[in-house]
Formats: sequence, C-alpha cells, structure tokens
Amino acid sequence: MAQQRTVVEQGNSGLGKQAGRVRFAKRTDRMKASEIREILKLMAQPDFISFAGGIPDPDLFPVEEVRIATERVLQQSFRTALQYAPTEGYGPLREWIAAYMNETFGLGLEGADVLITSGSQQGLDLIGKLLLDEGDVVLCESPTYLGAIQAFQPYNPRFIEIETDNDGMIPESLESTLAAYPEAKLLYAVPNYQNPTGRTWSLERRKRVMEIAARYAVTVVEDDPYGELRFEGDRLPPLQAFDQQGQVMYLGSFSKVLCPGYRVGWTAAPKVYLEKMVLAKQGVDLHTSSINQMIIYEMLQQQSLSAYVSRLIGTYKERRDAMAGVLREKLPELKFQLPQGGLFLWGELPEQWNCRTLLENGVQHKIAFVPGGSFYPNGGHEHTMRLNYSLSDEQRIREGVGRLAALIHSTQA
Amino acid sequence: MAQQRTVVEQGNSGLGKQAGRVRFAKRTDRMKASEIREILKLMAQPDFISFAGGIPDPDLFPVEEVRIATERVLQQSFRTALQYAPTEGYGPLREWIAAYMNETFGLGLEGADVLITSGSQQGLDLIGKLLLDEGDVVLCESPTYLGAIQAFQPYNPRFIEIETDNDGMIPESLESTLAAYPEAKLLYAVPNYQNPTGRTWSLERRKRVMEIAARYAVTVVEDDPYGELRFEGDRLPPLQAFDQQGQVMYLGSFSKVLCPGYRVGWTAAPKVYLEKMVLAKQGVDLHTSSINQMIIYEMLQQQSLSAYVSRLIGTYKERRDAMAGVLREKLPELKFQLPQGGLFLWGELPEQWNCRTLLENGVQHKIAFVPGGSFYPNGGHEHTMRLNYSLSDEQRIREGVGRLAALIHSTQA
Repeated sequence: MAQQRTVVEQGNSGLGKQAGRVRFAKRTDRMKASEIREILKLMAQPDFISFAGGIPDPDLFPVEEVRIATERVLQQSFRTALQYAPTEGYGPLREWIAAYMNETFGLGLEGADVLITSGSQQGLDLIGKLLLDEGDVVLCESPTYLGAIQAFQPYNPRFIEIETDNDGMIPESLESTLAAYPEAKLLYAVPNYQNPTGRTWSLERRKRVMEIAARYAVTVVEDDPYGELRFEGDRLPPLQAFDQQGQVMYLGSFSKVLCPGYRVGWTAAPKVYLEKMVLAKQGVDLHTSSINQMIIYEMLQQQSLSAYVSRLIGTYKERRDAMAGVLREKLPELKFQLPQGGLFLWGELPEQWNCRTLLENGVQHKIAFVPGGSFYPNGGHEHTMRLNYSLSDEQRIREGVGRLAALIHSTQA
Repeated sequence: MAQQRTVVEQGNSGLGKQAGRVRFAKRTDRMKASEIREILKLMAQPDFISFAGGIPDPDLFPVEEVRIATERVLQQSFRTALQYAPTEGYGPLREWIAAYMNETFGLGLEGADVLITSGSQQGLDLIGKLLLDEGDVVLCESPTYLGAIQAFQPYNPRFIEIETDNDGMIPESLESTLAAYPEAKLLYAVPNYQNPTGRTWSLERRKRVMEIAARYAVTVVEDDPYGELRFEGDRLPPLQAFDQQGQVMYLGSFSKVLCPGYRVGWTAAPKVYLEKMVLAKQGVDLHTSSINQMIIYEMLQQQSLSAYVSRLIGTYKERRDAMAGVLREKLPELKFQLPQGGLFLWGELPEQWNCRTLLENGVQHKIAFVPGGSFYPNGGHEHTMRLNYSLSDEQRIREGVGRLAALIHSTQA
C-alpha cells in the first residue's frame, strides 16, 4: 500500500475482544435491533416473495437517463461535482425544488428555503436534533412511519398517538390531545398515501388540523415521499399550503420518483428553522454528495418529473389492483381499504391474530410482510400488517398472496 | 406537474414569517454560525487566494477512472446501485477496506468490522450519539479538528484539551488529565498530519498514549483522513494496532485520496461498538449512497489506492515546500514546523497578534486563512493560523504568501 512498508510491531489487536464494559450514552438503551429486520434478513432469498420492503421496482429505474446525466456532469463540471460543496446543497437543484413546489402547490418558495438532505430520512434526524429535548412530546398518527420513530427516539421524546381513520388524522383527537399537552413540540404527519396505511388525508382534514396546530404553535413536520405516486383522485395541497405562521417543515425525496441509491431528499421550511438545520447538518456530514445532487438536477433537465413518474404509476396501480383482487378472493378475512397511491396496502385480521408470530411462521411459507404493530410507537395492534405491492409483478403478487393465505389458514389465531 | 391540477386554495403561506417563538432543543444553544464561515463566504471570489479550505486540488481528481467505474457499475448492476441498500454498507467495499487495513497496518480485520459512513464526518456524529451523555468528558489534542468539535458539541460534552508538542499528544498531560477525570468517555486524536497542525505522532507516543488509555478504558477515536498523504518519513502504525482491549474506533475516508464528492468514509471498530453504530445510522440516513460505494469499489479495482495517491503527493509536497520557502523569505516572524504530509501548515505569530482580526482585514488584501483559535474548544491561542497548501499552485502560493505578509506588515499587532 504505502511506498515504504509500514512499521508494524504487533499483530492484531483488541478488535476481536468484546469490551463488555463500554459505557454507551443513555439514549442507546432504546436503540434495539429490530427483530423484524433480523427475520427479514433470513428471507432475503430469491425464492422468497417479500411484501415487506417499501422499495421501488428496480426494473423501472431510469438507467439511461442516469447514464446521460452522469456523463454530462462529469464532462461539464467534474471539478465541482467531485469536490466538497456547501452544506445547504447544490444551488440549481434547490431552485428547481422551490419552483416545482410553487408550481405544484401554489407556494411562494425560494431556493434559499430549501435544504438538501441525505435522503429525507436525514431531515427527520436533523429535526429531532434541532427540536427535541428529553421528554418532549411528539404527536403522530396512529400508526406512523417506523423510520420517524427511529429517527426521533434517540432524542428521548414521548410519543403520543393521534387517532386516525380513512380520511387521515382525526381533528377532535388532535384537539383533545393538544389540550392535554399544550407544550407538545412536534406534530409528525404523512398526509399522502401514508406509510404504513396508504391513507390520504381529505382536504377538510388538512385544513382543520392546521387550524388546530396554529392555535398551539406546534411545529408540524410534513413528510411527503409518496405524493407524486397518485393513481386516482385529486392531488391535494400539502399542510404547508395552509401554514399561516411559519410552523411547517416539509420533507420531500427523490427516492420514490427517481431512485433511492443517490440518497437525495430535501426540507423546505421557514428560515428560522432552516438556518439552524444547516448548522446541525454541517456537524453531521458536511454536505450531501455533490455529484449525486448534480446528476439528479441534470436528470430533471432531460425530462419533467411527471414524465419519470408516469412510468411508475401505471405499473404500480396495476399491482395494487392485482393485490387487492387476489386478497378479496383468497383472504376475505383480511380487511383493507384500497389506497389511492403510494406503495402500501394496510390489512387488518380479526383482533385475536398476532402478525409477529405469523411472520415467524412465514419462513416456512417463503412469504414476508411487516407486522403492523411495529408502526405504533406505544405498541399494540398486533393483528395488523403492511403489504407492499410495488416490488412484485402480478404473477408474484398472485403467488405471494396465495402463500399468505396458506400461512394464515394453516395457523391458529 | 401532476396529471390533474392540484387543488390549491390559497397562496403562500407562512414561509416568509419568522416565527420568533420556535422552541428549539437546548442543545442548539451551542450551534452558532461560525463567523469565520461567514467571512470565508465573502472571500469565495476568483481573485481571492484562499489558504483557508482543507480541500484537495480538483485538477488532480481521477475523472477518467470515475467515468469508467460509473459506466461499469451502471452496466453490470444498476438495479443494486440505484436501489436501497443495507445500512452496514456495500459488502465488497467493506472487505476491500478490511484487507487494505490488514495489509497496511498488520491488523486482523474482517469486512464485518467495517461500517461505511457518509464521509468520516458522519462517523464522528454517530460516535457522539452512541457515547456522549450531557457533561461527559471528551479528551482531545490541543488544538484539534474543528469538525470533531462541531460533531460532538450537540451532545453537550465537556472538552478537556491535552497538551501537544511536535511529537503529538504529551503522555504526561494525558496521564494527569485522566487521573483527574478517570470517567472520561472518549479520547479523540488525529495522529497523522493532524488537522490543523500538520503534526505526526511519534511511534513512542502512540505506544505510550495507548498504554495509558488502556488503563483507563476510555474509548479512543482515531481519525485518519490524511495518513496516505505522506511526503517523507516512515508510515507509522495506527493507535488501533496497539489496541489490546477493543477500545479503538478508527475512522478512514476516501475524500482526500480519491475525491470528497462521493461522501464515502468508514469506521473500523470492535463489534460491540459497530452493532450499535449501525442501529444509530439506520435512523440517521438509512444507508450511504449505494452507487457511490460501488463506484469507489470499482475505482479501486482499476488501480491500487497507492497509484491514486502517488499522483497527489508529488504535487502536494512541492506546494508545501513552496509555501515553506516563501514564508521563510517573506514572513520570518511566523513560526512553523514543516509537516511531513497532509494538507496543512500551522503558523504561530508572536503572542500579541489576533488572527481573527487579521482575517477580517484580509478581505482588503484578498487573502484568506483559518484563525487557529477556532481549533481550541476552550478558546485562546488567537495568535495562530492554519494555512492550506494543497489547493493553490506554486505561483498562487507565492502571490498569496506575499499578500499575507503585506496584510501582517500593514496591521498593528
């Protein structure tokens, strides 16, 4: 390796030794390896059918556009693309995002209102770092996105779940919870094609939730990775469009509409938040990959985002319909609502079922899903499950639902 | 954008409003915009000469190798490269890193001992998250890397500086400090071509520091981004080679030897640390860009790391020599030691000088550097400065040092 051989005086070393007495920070007590993640690792074999992931179909990735965009970026600006870059993100991409949100949602953003993050997951971590002291109250939908729980948990908040129905968060439940916890720091919501339920909030609910949130001056974190993946129905304005007080932080992502491998997402938020978020990000990773931001920008110059998205939604809609059809046919005891977009279908078995136990038995049937209980920060609801339909073609969906039905029908509730 | 027009009921919105009453977490009190960063932004103009950054010369980036590697990755495995990926990192790259460290340092690592991070800066944040409770003691060199201070500070530790000289950390100072703070959580060190001082620890010092650290069972964080950039002298083994207890976490990076734009670094550490670090990273950004990891791996298949490095060190050594020569000639009142590698030269003016004030006046002379006081977590030492020589060619170095001399000679101490 080195030009002269290294002076090595001893072999290895303490690496094999498991220092049992490492004094971890208290916050790590709640960092536990998810047993589901461990089970799902076992299932990562080709003859398995997994409805567990929340991942796009890689056969739909725009690889030709990636190739062309990369070539252009390297040709025109490799010195910038491969170099360190400002923490805030690549200027033209920030401008593009502001313009896209303005055009789509009727907002009045500037590039300076946008921070590029390493996936929108990083936005969640930075927001936790910025806002959450130990014991602070985080309000969320019940159920809510598992990755948000994981991002916020190290900052030791208290999660309070707000009731939801098929139209989204229930305003009365939010109102009474905020009356009980008026000091709540943060309201986390996924209003479009929610992970895990696939539900979309109605226009009325969006307005009422923001009216209530405004009265209590709670910071609203609106997570919207799936909004573009709309199969039917109107596109509804984000919570940010009803924000009169500068209290909404909106998280967007290119992972579901272009591809996840670049890890490029963003936060659009009032400057009072964004300035601190930039400082936090600087200590966390200096900046998001410069070349990746420039490639994404270049891809968006080649064709519109809606052109990229239109390739996906036809296929995903067919798969949703296929899954819904086979479920009705083969597994009528699983209740579900048809999602209008996104990647997930949310199923409920009769209450005596435990879907974690079911998943363990799934190994024998070579079928995987995510037990719904994982999405409730305070536990319970073990009779629910999240099924992903974006990754498997119709034949595998048919086969997979067959295995799921066989699994359930051969198991005692 | 959307296939049907969005229902937009109102224009913007609260984004312009600066909610003055945002209740940030207590930890953000210490997140302040660096005044230096602000000054340096002003200086980012082409006729400025900046010795401030710590960045590689982009004209030396291996752009052809990047192009070939990208093409291969997209050709052979775009489905994996553009998809979500395991938090731990790309398996073949982890194996490569383990083999490289084993060959270079005589260690006995496996791929499983390595976590890929989004730059080694992310390793620092994750380590802070893992280990630091409020008030915990962090020991560091005096001075130390500014980015480590920024990464650890949000976890509210107490920084205690250990005295250093030209051979590195002074064991007697470490010993007496640990006797006073036996519960110290973490010892942070940059033993090779340190940022900011350019100093390299002697072999004897490495051994003695590890003997003392072993007695106190403090976690040692060894940050080694510059180790490969060696102009002369022996390559010395890392602290990790003297670790008998499994207490060293080693941070490496491809930013200085290939290019920073991919944001790919790593942590090699005992499993008891690494397992928790993976959990923390999962909540923070899910994983580091999959395509970037695969491109870096592919670049290392094309040629050895030492072949990439050998292009750099010839040029950087010439620039170091040029800067040292012109400094001796034009600015004899600036004391410095010649660094044996890396990117930085550390200068000390007589004690009555204040380099922050000097920098402010630098705007008129179109010259920038980093005031050394920034690298002392507990302040002081304002008569020092860090000068970078990697980014400017010899002519600009000569011109820049001339401006620096003119600045100093036209200013009252």
